[in-house]
Amino acid sequence: MTTEMASGQTSMIGLDDERLARASLTYLAEPSDQRLGVLTETYGAAPVLAGIRTGTLPGPPAPPGPARDAERKSLERWQSRLGELPTQEGLERLCRDGIRLVCPGDAEWPARLDDLGAARPYALWLRGRADLRFSCLRSMSIVGSRAASAYGSYMACELAAGVAGQGWTVVSGAAYGVDGAAHSSALNAEGTTVAVLACGVDMPYPAGHKDLLDAIASHGVVASEWPPGRNPTRLRFLVRNRVIAALSPGTLVVEAGERSGALNTARYARDLGRTLMAVPGPVTSGQSRGCHTIIRDWGGTLVTSAGEAVEDVSRISDQPGETPVTPETGPVLPRDQLDPESATVLDALPVRGGLGTTDVAVKAGLPPADVLRLLGGLAAGGFAERCERGWRIRRT
Amino acid sequence: MTTEMASGQTSMIGLDDERLARASLTYLAEPSDQRLGVLTETYGAAPVLAGIRTGTLPGPPAPPGPARDAERKSLERWQSRLGELPTQEGLERLCRDGIRLVCPGDAEWPARLDDLGAARPYALWLRGRADLRFSCLRSMSIVGSRAASAYGSYMACELAAGVAGQGWTVVSGAAYGVDGAAHSSALNAEGTTVAVLACGVDMPYPAGHKDLLDAIASHGVVASEWPPGRNPTRLRFLVRNRVIAALSPGTLVVEAGERSGALNTARYARDLGRTLMAVPGPVTSGQSRGCHTIIRDWGGTLVTSAGEAVEDVSRISDQPGETPVTPETGPVLPRDQLDPESATVLDALPVRGGLGTTDVAVKAGLPPADVLRLLGGLAAGGFAERCERGWRIRRT
Repeated sequence: MTTEMASGQTSMIGLDDERLARASLTYLAEPSDQRLGVLTETYGAAPVLAGIRTGTLPGPPAPPGPARDAERKSLERWQSRLGELPTQEGLERLCRDGIRLVCPGDAEWPARLDDLGAARPYALWLRGRADLRFSCLRSMSIVGSRAASAYGSYMACELAAGVAGQGWTVVSGAAYGVDGAAHSSALNAEGTTVAVLACGVDMPYPAGHKDLLDAIASHGVVASEWPPGRNPTRLRFLVRNRVIAALSPGTLVVEAGERSGALNTARYARDLGRTLMAVPGPVTSGQSRGCHTIIRDWGGTLVTSAGEAVEDVSRISDQPGETPVTPETGPVLPRDQLDPESATVLDALPVRGGLGTTDVAVKAGLPPADVLRLLGGLAAGGFAERCERGWRIRRT
Repeated sequence: MTTEMASGQTSMIGLDDERLARASLTYLAEPSDQRLGVLTETYGAAPVLAGIRTGTLPGPPAPPGPARDAERKSLERWQSRLGELPTQEGLERLCRDGIRLVCPGDAEWPARLDDLGAARPYALWLRGRADLRFSCLRSMSIVGSRAASAYGSYMACELAAGVAGQGWTVVSGAAYGVDGAAHSSALNAEGTTVAVLACGVDMPYPAGHKDLLDAIASHGVVASEWPPGRNPTRLRFLVRNRVIAALSPGTLVVEAGERSGALNTARYARDLGRTLMAVPGPVTSGQSRGCHTIIRDWGGTLVTSAGEAVEDVSRISDQPGETPVTPETGPVLPRDQLDPESATVLDALPVRGGLGTTDVAVKAGLPPADVLRLLGGLAAGGFAERCERGWRIRRT
């Protein structure tokens, strides 16, 4: 698989053994399995997959007793799913449906996920036109209650629009309530947005967000650790949350009741050393209780505007394994690493004044829809910025 | 003047020269005049008053030039008010009206005010049955917008009732809105409350709070740096705020717009090293904007309940010049420093179970109204606590 697959132009036939093995592991094991993570990082995915097939995992066996029993149970669980592995035909069909696989080390792999250590995803399944790593360079995770109040939905929209308007990608979980409001609002602001699901990227879940998920795929990325076809479960939502927290340098909780899953995401963000932020609300609203806990007890900062959120996230000096977020000082990637289409769009932008999307498209000789997507990536990468009169090159 | 004046039993005839001079300074100069503060602390109030009368202040004169011109102007300003000094008769009338004077060093002088340095009040005029220092030992300043929203008024009531219910005194500024709600709610919870005014303690200001001020005097204290009869001005409210901040180990802002006077109080609290707290609210409410600034930018803690506020204030290890606030570990004053009536009430309290106010009054042989006031003081001092069945001795 090559990076061109991001544009859906290549097939999955090119998967080498290691990448095919990582794809297989997403079918056999639940993500964040520490034992499997350590094995894969130590011996590689292909030997581990072979070990699952033969019943003998690489490396020294656990000492007899409870540890070996647990090892045996894991192995049996993984083996029980061998029948679910897709055929070559099945993989090709996924590819035709616009679904691609990204593995650690790929150009599109977001290096921030490596902060998860042995719990980093075996691989990610993606659907959508944007480049995941590129989109997440300047991103903010905006999450919150499914049972959002009118206030929570309003704040999610306001903040996501503001964050997207500053060229930042909005990462969220595509749930009803705050998540959905954040994604929609980022899209309305012509920003890039990334949805991280707890089910296959082909699954319309939640059902009422089918159109939203398609819109996200058209302008951003839908991502999942689970292979296509998998249903979400309560546990999967919680496991998924660590990816939402890891993908961005900062997580902003808009509304969260005391038992909200958003608090789970917030805890991951804190434990990963990410910037943790929360929106205050009335003390009398149960939906703001989790936000107040984050600010009062978890060291989260209180955020009332997109500007403050961007300011807080930008304060991070550097992220292990990732280029520092320095929104005021230009690109976070060298220009020569841009794909040819992005470079063409960048060349079409003025230094002063501004140019509307249509004019940029004409100048670059590319379809306007593509140009809009590429501009979003260029903004996230710090190359371009929106101004009153349209788009222009970001001054460094 | 003796401490018995707190009960309105003594006259002001006993004022010695130094105390009479301090009383006079409150008539002649505006509070927080650094020049006058330094002179008074250095040479004593009586020599300074004599210097104002003769036109020659004690100490070396300022060098010729702008400094001496400023000194001359101050002197002329103070001298211009010499005609406003009360006669002996006037002072006796104030005393008959239940107004008393407390000076630095008096038993009733709250030592925390000394943290104001040269800006500490020359003296305080008091009206009310409670002992000011005793009341402020365990106290919390609860302030906020005059133009409080329904949410702000509700939160002020909730928090003041909770704070008072835990035996803490509520200090505030008697204004409409948050201040008034905090005072009223503390009184309804049978707690002690202290109102610090920007006018004479005999002035019904604001007019709609005349009954409230009388009720505060019946169960707590009304205090002012300005002598009886003085009207409030915009500047006086701001100068007054430093006393509200200084009297308590912590200041809690319930609601504050961006230009609210409560932010001025909050800044004093922060600069004095007091615990600064604020109640969050909807980002969409202008009345919560100041609170969010306090939490986000001024290092204030976010508070959602009286329990949290008491917890935050109790975290202070010690206050310069004042006994540490240690609400969980018993009295903050030795028992032998209690006045005879308080000691009698304390002796009437059970160690286990609890006794209603009326029963305590019968056992102590004192009027129920007095017993209620004395119990408030004993609670603030950490000797007594309210329980389900009434009052009991606080276990250390």
